[in-house]
Amino acid sequence: MEKIKIGLLGLGTVGMGVYKLIQRRADVMEKTVGAELEIRKILVHNINKKREGIDASFLTDDWHQIVEDEDIQIVIEVMGGMEPAKTIIMEALKAGKNVVSANKDLIAQEGRDLLDTAHENKRDFLFEAAVAGGIPIIRPLKQCLAGNDITDVIGIVNGTTNYILTKMSEDGMEFADALKKAQELGYAEADPTADVEGLDAARKVAIMASIAFHSRVVPSDVYTQGITKITARDIAYAKEFDSVIKLLGVAGNTEEGIEAGVCPMMIHKDHPLASVRESFNAVFVHGDAVDDAMFYGRGAGEMPTASAVVGDVIDVARDLKYGCTGRISCTCYKELPVKKWGDVKNKFFIRMQVKNQPGVLASAAQVFGRYKVSIARVVQEHTEPEMAELVIVTEKVKEKYMENALDELKSLPPICEISSVIREYSGT
Amino acid sequence: MEKIKIGLLGLGTVGMGVYKLIQRRADVMEKTVGAELEIRKILVHNINKKREGIDASFLTDDWHQIVEDEDIQIVIEVMGGMEPAKTIIMEALKAGKNVVSANKDLIAQEGRDLLDTAHENKRDFLFEAAVAGGIPIIRPLKQCLAGNDITDVIGIVNGTTNYILTKMSEDGMEFADALKKAQELGYAEADPTADVEGLDAARKVAIMASIAFHSRVVPSDVYTQGITKITARDIAYAKEFDSVIKLLGVAGNTEEGIEAGVCPMMIHKDHPLASVRESFNAVFVHGDAVDDAMFYGRGAGEMPTASAVVGDVIDVARDLKYGCTGRISCTCYKELPVKKWGDVKNKFFIRMQVKNQPGVLASAAQVFGRYKVSIARVVQEHTEPEMAELVIVTEKVKEKYMENALDELKSLPPICEISSVIREYSGT
Repeated sequence: MEKIKIGLLGLGTVGMGVYKLIQRRADVMEKTVGAELEIRKILVHNINKKREGIDASFLTDDWHQIVEDEDIQIVIEVMGGMEPAKTIIMEALKAGKNVVSANKDLIAQEGRDLLDTAHENKRDFLFEAAVAGGIPIIRPLKQCLAGNDITDVIGIVNGTTNYILTKMSEDGMEFADALKKAQELGYAEADPTADVEGLDAARKVAIMASIAFHSRVVPSDVYTQGITKITARDIAYAKEFDSVIKLLGVAGNTEEGIEAGVCPMMIHKDHPLASVRESFNAVFVHGDAVDDAMFYGRGAGEMPTASAVVGDVIDVARDLKYGCTGRISCTCYKELPVKKWGDVKNKFFIRMQVKNQPGVLASAAQVFGRYKVSIARVVQEHTEPEMAELVIVTEKVKEKYMENALDELKSLPPICEISSVIREYSGT
Repeated sequence: MEKIKIGLLGLGTVGMGVYKLIQRRADVMEKTVGAELEIRKILVHNINKKREGIDASFLTDDWHQIVEDEDIQIVIEVMGGMEPAKTIIMEALKAGKNVVSANKDLIAQEGRDLLDTAHENKRDFLFEAAVAGGIPIIRPLKQCLAGNDITDVIGIVNGTTNYILTKMSEDGMEFADALKKAQELGYAEADPTADVEGLDAARKVAIMASIAFHSRVVPSDVYTQGITKITARDIAYAKEFDSVIKLLGVAGNTEEGIEAGVCPMMIHKDHPLASVRESFNAVFVHGDAVDDAMFYGRGAGEMPTASAVVGDVIDVARDLKYGCTGRISCTCYKELPVKKWGDVKNKFFIRMQVKNQPGVLASAAQVFGRYKVSIARVVQEHTEPEMAELVIVTEKVKEKYMENALDELKSLPPICEISSVIREYSGT
């Protein structure tokens, strides 16, 4: 039986999962691929730290030991971060190794470089685990749906924020309490910024948009807004409107360019994404042939992420056996413009605290009219004797017009506070 | 630019979709695969029939013209049925052609032969379109989730029955009216037997179970029950129990063997499969590493099915370019037993018409007790002065014990009719 030797970069949560899964599934690989997979070396920070079930002689703290080992044919990168991950991957590809990576930050930013280097060296560079953890989405987009002109990719691609929003929605919690609960359960990190501010989701949107639209999108192209300002009251309104609030990554391919953003949005409860609860992720895709499709599952965690990594490793093993590594390289053959966010059209839900006096609605409506904003729905509720809460839901309007309208609204004396501005997902 | 020539078998709905999609997506294939795809010959029944947009010189009514054409490298089979489809595919593979098929009947029954022949000839035999139309499920199961020990595959894999059950559930229709509506809309055929009796779903379950569990399952291994006996009253009870009724294809890999069945089941409304509405399909998968995953989309139709076929064709084109056709062959390396359906355990919902007299429940409960059936829930409602409706929901029990209990119940004088026996899906 042929032996395929592997170098593993990183032995954190995902690294341990990958190690365990490769051992556990040895029989399948032998039987379905016809090769034995063997982890030969593991890069760690501290080779002296004891690790349950790991033979210490495999450990190294020098990545050259892996890149320069001629027997190693596959390098698995699960160390994360930009450097030294990028350098090691580039050197590994140049040394003729195939690479499987779960590093979304790096791929979102430097994917082109990495894929080009893989292509030049006729090697595989696969990264199914980088988006939505265990959910198969990269291979479906690149292969299964390759016959489609994909126009929309909409994802719940951050489990932490989806868990928080589910708790707020189902248990009536406020954001701070839900975040605390998520931290207690290990769903949120001590510093939750990357998750709750939407940065993590934005990286995944950049990767998915690049693949779906065949044109490179980087994280700075993605408008990003987090969920920290969402309140229990907004969620109650969403319910009244038969909707839920989800942090959506939305990417569209329009005639005027690619639109890409991450923001909390109200989405109707009948939409398949609305029933994605707890820390689950899902990616909804619209293509001209396939129509609507959705991929659902665990977006993070030791074993789900390892599942995606090992799926890629098995694919590389097949390519090695059949001498066809590098058969799928970068598919970004277009250079489409990315639309300015100000030119993207959205529907808005606006919640304001206003003085309870005649003419408030009329003056707000006038401001909206001036900026081409059509109003779809108005709800006004008395809160205190002299105060009222005014909720306005708009039709689709360019972001920049809405921004101008909001600026002007803020300066109207009877409008005391604009409490919430939340977009409404209105379908593909 | 390299040209890859294609022979198309069949020019019905799906065939036309495939033809159109290959023309429409020519640019992507050239740019991402580096080859031009050209449909060279098309097998039809009647070469004299005029077909919009099709050059008549491509048409042939003799399949040898395609199999013996040395320039043709890919054969797409969308003619359906067992013969002559099987003979043509076998001859095409032996002649060194790669084959893409959407033929679920044939693959469910003869998949092993076809895959073995492809393997012997080092050619691709791909069939993403054969299960759940446009939804990527074969490639995810075979590749993305290859690192998993998959224990469960549960699918809504027939759009006709899901449409009928949705209408019954949401609009209160009875089965016959919902079927009529489905027929008017073209979702159901004039003879709806294969759909409403679950036969179509059973074929797809056989294919998915074979791939997921690495062991051949054929349609006759799959217990099959349709939805013709489901009534509006059953659906109302399901609602009362926070559930919906869906025609589920359920395949499990247990220590005692593979379980495979298709039957209407009550499923809790929070389960992701419960919100799959109208003619949409979805496949829910549980693996030891990935945990739960679900794939959702259009299970049939001209363009969704064409989407899956063309995705496969592009994959074959890549394999041709890299000289690695046949890289993924049959993965059924195990020979697991298929459990007798009588030994499969399920929960049951039983609705009976009984005489409204003391002791009826007690005697029914006695019968259940005798056959090791534990009762989870009882609802009794007066219907007429002398009659009552008795609903019993059981815990998990072997199918054969339930069958015996039901036989005995039927003979109890106060039990006038057993109106419904519906299984309850109780999770993985």
